[in-house]
Amino acid sequence: MDWTRHDLLDLQDLTREEIELILETAKSFKEVSTRDVKKVPALRGKTIVMLFFESSTRTRASFELAAKRLSADTINFSVGASSVSKGESVLDTAKNIEAMNVDMIVVRHKSAGVPQMLRDHLDSAVINAGDGCRAHPTQALLDLFTIQEKKGRVEGLDVAIVGDILHSRVARSNIFGLTKLGARVTLCGPSTLMPKDIEKLGVTVDYDLKNVIKKVDVLMMLRLQIERQREKFLPSMREYAREFGVNKEKLKGAKKDILIMHPGPTNRGVELSADVADGECSVILEQVTNGVAVRMAVLYLLAGTKHEPAE
Amino acid sequence: MDWTRHDLLDLQDLTREEIELILETAKSFKEVSTRDVKKVPALRGKTIVMLFFESSTRTRASFELAAKRLSADTINFSVGASSVSKGESVLDTAKNIEAMNVDMIVVRHKSAGVPQMLRDHLDSAVINAGDGCRAHPTQALLDLFTIQEKKGRVEGLDVAIVGDILHSRVARSNIFGLTKLGARVTLCGPSTLMPKDIEKLGVTVDYDLKNVIKKVDVLMMLRLQIERQREKFLPSMREYAREFGVNKEKLKGAKKDILIMHPGPTNRGVELSADVADGECSVILEQVTNGVAVRMAVLYLLAGTKHEPAE
Amino acid sequence: MDWTRHDLLDLQDLTREEIELILETAKSFKEVSTRDVKKVPALRGKTIVMLFFESSTRTRASFELAAKRLSADTINFSVGASSVSKGESVLDTAKNIEAMNVDMIVVRHKSAGVPQMLRDHLDSAVINAGDGCRAHPTQALLDLFTIQEKKGRVEGLDVAIVGDILHSRVARSNIFGLTKLGARVTLCGPSTLMPKDIEKLGVTVDYDLKNVIKKVDVLMMLRLQIERQREKFLPSMREYAREFGVNKEKLKGAKKDILIMHPGPTNRGVELSADVADGECSVILEQVTNGVAVRMAVLYLLAGTKHEPAE
Repeated sequence: MDWTRHDLLDLQDLTREEIELILETAKSFKEVSTRDVKKVPALRGKTIVMLFFESSTRTRASFELAAKRLSADTINFSVGASSVSKGESVLDTAKNIEAMNVDMIVVRHKSAGVPQMLRDHLDSAVINAGDGCRAHPTQALLDLFTIQEKKGRVEGLDVAIVGDILHSRVARSNIFGLTKLGARVTLCGPSTLMPKDIEKLGVTVDYDLKNVIKKVDVLMMLRLQIERQREKFLPSMREYAREFGVNKEKLKGAKKDILIMHPGPTNRGVELSADVADGECSVILEQVTNGVAVRMAVLYLLAGTKHEPAE
Repeated sequence: MDWTRHDLLDLQDLTREEIELILETAKSFKEVSTRDVKKVPALRGKTIVMLFFESSTRTRASFELAAKRLSADTINFSVGASSVSKGESVLDTAKNIEAMNVDMIVVRHKSAGVPQMLRDHLDSAVINAGDGCRAHPTQALLDLFTIQEKKGRVEGLDVAIVGDILHSRVARSNIFGLTKLGARVTLCGPSTLMPKDIEKLGVTVDYDLKNVIKKVDVLMMLRLQIERQREKFLPSMREYAREFGVNKEKLKGAKKDILIMHPGPTNRGVELSADVADGECSVILEQVTNGVAVRMAVLYLLAGTKHEPAE
Repeated sequence: MDWTRHDLLDLQDLTREEIELILETAKSFKEVSTRDVKKVPALRGKTIVMLFFESSTRTRASFELAAKRLSADTINFSVGASSVSKGESVLDTAKNIEAMNVDMIVVRHKSAGVPQMLRDHLDSAVINAGDGCRAHPTQALLDLFTIQEKKGRVEGLDVAIVGDILHSRVARSNIFGLTKLGARVTLCGPSTLMPKDIEKLGVTVDYDLKNVIKKVDVLMMLRLQIERQREKFLPSMREYAREFGVNKEKLKGAKKDILIMHPGPTNRGVELSADVADGECSVILEQVTNGVAVRMAVLYLLAGTKHEPAE
């Protein structure tokens, strides 16, 4: 199949075939980053802007490296240093950036819907690098890539997503991606952090982590935001760790080859004990490695398509 | 004619022929940014430093993109992240940067005269990206470029500059540029924000915006700094908008093909109503596009000249 | 000899031959920065990350320029903008960066030992850009390079290091470098800022600056941190300047061709009077120029070696 989309906003929009095309493309780009000369000329002379209204270490760096390894030119914007502090609106800022003949805008914003809004008003390709609690499609893509690489497939696997489902864009994008590729998804976490009617998305909810651990092939842990406790979603971090954190002890009933994943940065001792985070089932650092490959694939595929005026 | 200058500090210094050479050069560079591969090797291996003591989204990005599209290497400095916070003087900082064999320094500073001071003490080419209320030559050049592109000429046009003339480096640089190229310039704004004896620069002052709007080919709106109200230059933003803001209603008496310009970021509802800012007469985003072309021209021309010891 | 080291942590670890190889290599790279096209393809397709937990103007820029002139791709991290503020540990951050197939990590941190800790846990080459009061090897290398260039040798010279020896990573790295290359080193500064038993490193302590000035070929001044006064190490800046600052008057007894060095940024009127800092004996800006050459040499040599598993 050919890639025809102009933007990447959410995995909800993509077909299974489109997701598989990205993963396939990422496979060949992963090899580029292991070469002595980690660079291909694919996007030479393209301009890619990182428009980050929320700070981020790894996502911004991962996109920036992906762009540079494709030989694109990159420009960084972050909130503090920009004239957004002069009261300029997000759209005005983006339109001004686009007017500099920018090919792609990678955007992160704490409000859900900002990437969609930009897509509706811009000709540049828009890539969602995380919007509020809504979507983080490249994170889900790198998770799918990692599972496929390690397990040989996604179809038919049992995958649990554990933690603060309610506020997690990572969970939401993964639910769409995993179910589209044919995995069975179980959600687990405090009931105060479980969205109502989430089963409508084709997933199962199970509040008993021990039970969940026993049956799954993949355990995808979510980062707990410390501020959730202040917001009264949680009694205490310690309590949370005891109920929904994973350590060696709890893994005793698990399959031998269970994959432990985390989008990072990990709160060691909360979501994962240190020995599990660094243990042989953990693929956390491989997720990071695969992130660059997946983002190279996304940038590469989007660069090949023109904006449809009817869109 | 050949370009012989080593620095760009203000349009006041340039001859009409020099300004026209920059605009002519920018025309060919504008095409580069519309190519599939937006890059020419002209400044390969040159080092250009962005030395910004004032934060800025678009000007810094515009220069950085211009430099990258010419294949130069760029380095960013901004105040917070630099050892200027350790009490190092502006000149010491610049001299240290220059010692790293830097070819050009693009400088923005809130104090008028900093670029001149650097020019007097450095061998690197110095480009003024805005100094206090004094000069912003590349903004004026991109404004001239936009007028010439849209109107076919600058000579003989009636151009109004509207707003806080007193504090505006954009106004000041445009006054020099426009009058040198043969336009008739009218200044309009609150009397508290009009410099005394400004007519000496060869411009007309008219406090009646409606009257001004009727006669001009180009309406160049200035950004109003919110802090001017606190400083008692203005009764209120609403009052200002009513007297010196432009909306559809006020434009009724204007020429059909009037150009509406703004250096950005626009305070919508203050200088311009949203429908005018986004209307068919507005060339605000084209100004941004042309900014990259003009800055490519400036970097390119300056790179071809050596520092004269007698300067 | 061949270069075999994988990391650069401190000059304490290097042999005289290794130091001399870096200086020799830097000599040829210095010429690159004087070319019209300041760029060689040596590290094309390598990824070099600047991981700065302490802010820095010149060191970060110097490394970044060195990397760019070798055609490497660079990524900047600094504390405020990174998820280190989310409580992620230094090692976690570095491991995540490394997982993106990064070749070299240039690290600065206010705690001594961080570069060693990273070296012990990472495969990427680690380059110390300053850790606490411990080491700043590239600063010492550029100092050695400057002395050798100006004096034709380091062996047999008398070099004084003057100031806050106790807190100075620059002093410490220079002590190792200078003594290994055969210079005689005298330390001078307030007794409250002189480490106990420092003579064990093969240096002499002399509290009388006038006496020191008379005998040395090189006077290496250290930057005084203003906060030392608050910490009660000093009675006052004025007192310090009178006793340990250098001005024209104090230089009267010095050798005609004495070299005045400073790692910058200089507190003018404290360590050095302005006329001495800008005078003919001062090589402060040449140190900055040589910094780029030395860092190019270090990056180049380290890029040629693989990580030894036994290390």
